[in-house]
Amino acid sequence: MKCRKCSEKALITLRRHNASFCKEHFNEFFIKQVEKGIKEYKMFDFSDKIMVCISGGKDSLVLWYLLHKMGYETTGMYINLGIGEYSEKSLRKVEAFTEKFGLKAVIVNLTELGHPIPLLEKSVKRHACSICGIAKRYYFNKVAYENNFDVVATGHNLDDESARLLGNVLKWDPAYLSKMDPNLPEEGDYIKRKVKPLIRLTELEVGAFAFMNGIDYITDECPKSVGATSMLYKGVLNSLESDMPGTKHYFYNEFFRTVADRFRADSEEKTEMYNCAVCGMESFLETCSFCKMLEKMK
Amino acid sequence: MKCRKCSEKALITLRRHNASFCKEHFNEFFIKQVEKGIKEYKMFDFSDKIMVCISGGKDSLVLWYLLHKMGYETTGMYINLGIGEYSEKSLRKVEAFTEKFGLKAVIVNLTELGHPIPLLEKSVKRHACSICGIAKRYYFNKVAYENNFDVVATGHNLDDESARLLGNVLKWDPAYLSKMDPNLPEEGDYIKRKVKPLIRLTELEVGAFAFMNGIDYITDECPKSVGATSMLYKGVLNSLESDMPGTKHYFYNEFFRTVADRFRADSEEKTEMYNCAVCGMESFLETCSFCKMLEKMK
Repeated sequence: MKCRKCSEKALITLRRHNASFCKEHFNEFFIKQVEKGIKEYKMFDFSDKIMVCISGGKDSLVLWYLLHKMGYETTGMYINLGIGEYSEKSLRKVEAFTEKFGLKAVIVNLTELGHPIPLLEKSVKRHACSICGIAKRYYFNKVAYENNFDVVATGHNLDDESARLLGNVLKWDPAYLSKMDPNLPEEGDYIKRKVKPLIRLTELEVGAFAFMNGIDYITDECPKSVGATSMLYKGVLNSLESDMPGTKHYFYNEFFRTVADRFRADSEEKTEMYNCAVCGMESFLETCSFCKMLEKMK
Repeated sequence: MKCRKCSEKALITLRRHNASFCKEHFNEFFIKQVEKGIKEYKMFDFSDKIMVCISGGKDSLVLWYLLHKMGYETTGMYINLGIGEYSEKSLRKVEAFTEKFGLKAVIVNLTELGHPIPLLEKSVKRHACSICGIAKRYYFNKVAYENNFDVVATGHNLDDESARLLGNVLKWDPAYLSKMDPNLPEEGDYIKRKVKPLIRLTELEVGAFAFMNGIDYITDECPKSVGATSMLYKGVLNSLESDMPGTKHYFYNEFFRTVADRFRADSEEKTEMYNCAVCGMESFLETCSFCKMLEKMK
């Protein structure tokens, strides 16, 4: 197989684009897709202070690497979740990454703060992924606010987001469907804008980019994510994609082009925000979900 | 496993209803689901003349059997598609069925009319399923109009309709999404109301009902349907259903409860109908799709 651009030997074939690329032109393709995503959804510009949430996985490290390389003002933010060996491994990957590329990250350690995920899991009757999501969202918001960032960027890719869309579509919950936007506006004083610049790229493409560019990342799946429904949704979308390349991209993008507005209207009506009685941050409830969890733990 | 109702030995377990049933109580359950579908979507009542479209498969024969048994005024309508051995077999099943239950069917023979599906397939560049759909819809409308039926009933089940919904959702085409209703209103003078009374029942449940009630049907899949995308969609929904029983039903029903209206509005704006220049029936184009196909064949 030859590169579509230069006819050198191709390293990767992308069926949904009906194209093969050498390393150089795959990188070019990849960066263009990120630029396109940022532009299409007006995510940020060079005047913005961007906080990149990193986990030690391929998506977030690739995102940080790229935004930094493209000249954006970025700071990494890592949450040590306290999930045993998995968290230790991922922290080591983050440290190696920041050292290799001369970058600095803010680190939040849930164990030091007294509420690592396994401890929260014991007192809160929810799937670990749901608990972890609440904790992450809380610290993303808190750190971004306290450090005066303009925007919070996460490494969610096309597989993540099309799977989440499928999950929300199977339940048809308008409130969730109205929160799919890869550029979620800020809310009140505390909650900063959230963006997902990798939404035009698949898991496979991000992994290939990391590999070709010497970005080492944790390949283990989180041990707590076993049985997560998102895995089921990714599985069925992969099976459709394999028979009909381009399915994920079309499903995800067409949603925003022709459908999302139909759900936005009533979410605007419903949203009423409070300041959490415990921490003071914006919340949909009088006490925010995170502070409620901590109360249950005590 | 024991029947939920009478504690006799159960013949079938329905995971999505968390219930097992003996033959008698499965039949009771099944009929209730059909009644519920008819009532919920106001499909028809005992004063309506119902044309039941039958193919020789389980769904349409079960539907006809039940509507007749429930006391509705029904006539079967069978189209011999002229697809070799498959069509011959299905016709024999229909003849055996009508004889066994003392019923009468109108029969349309595409070979005698000069355009069996395989002949149309040679001149029209489309998947056979699409050609067949156009031809069937045309004769359903024509026969219903000429024989003065009030409503046209088809045997589409929950698997068929949730798969169709999934296909339409993956493409997000508002025009298709607005045509999902299991009770489609009549259009103009020629096109009668179309209803799908089996939408609360799965393929497996309909098959079990046929088996338990001595309804013999053709089990072969149509040889032309190989590679039809609907099969892919059914496959992924079955895989989700197996991990999360009830997924299909919730996906399908919740669509009508909370979403369908959001797509109905613009379909009403768009619909402009003509009378086909060739056959005179209502059409979205100046010449209807079926007459266009026949022209291409000549």
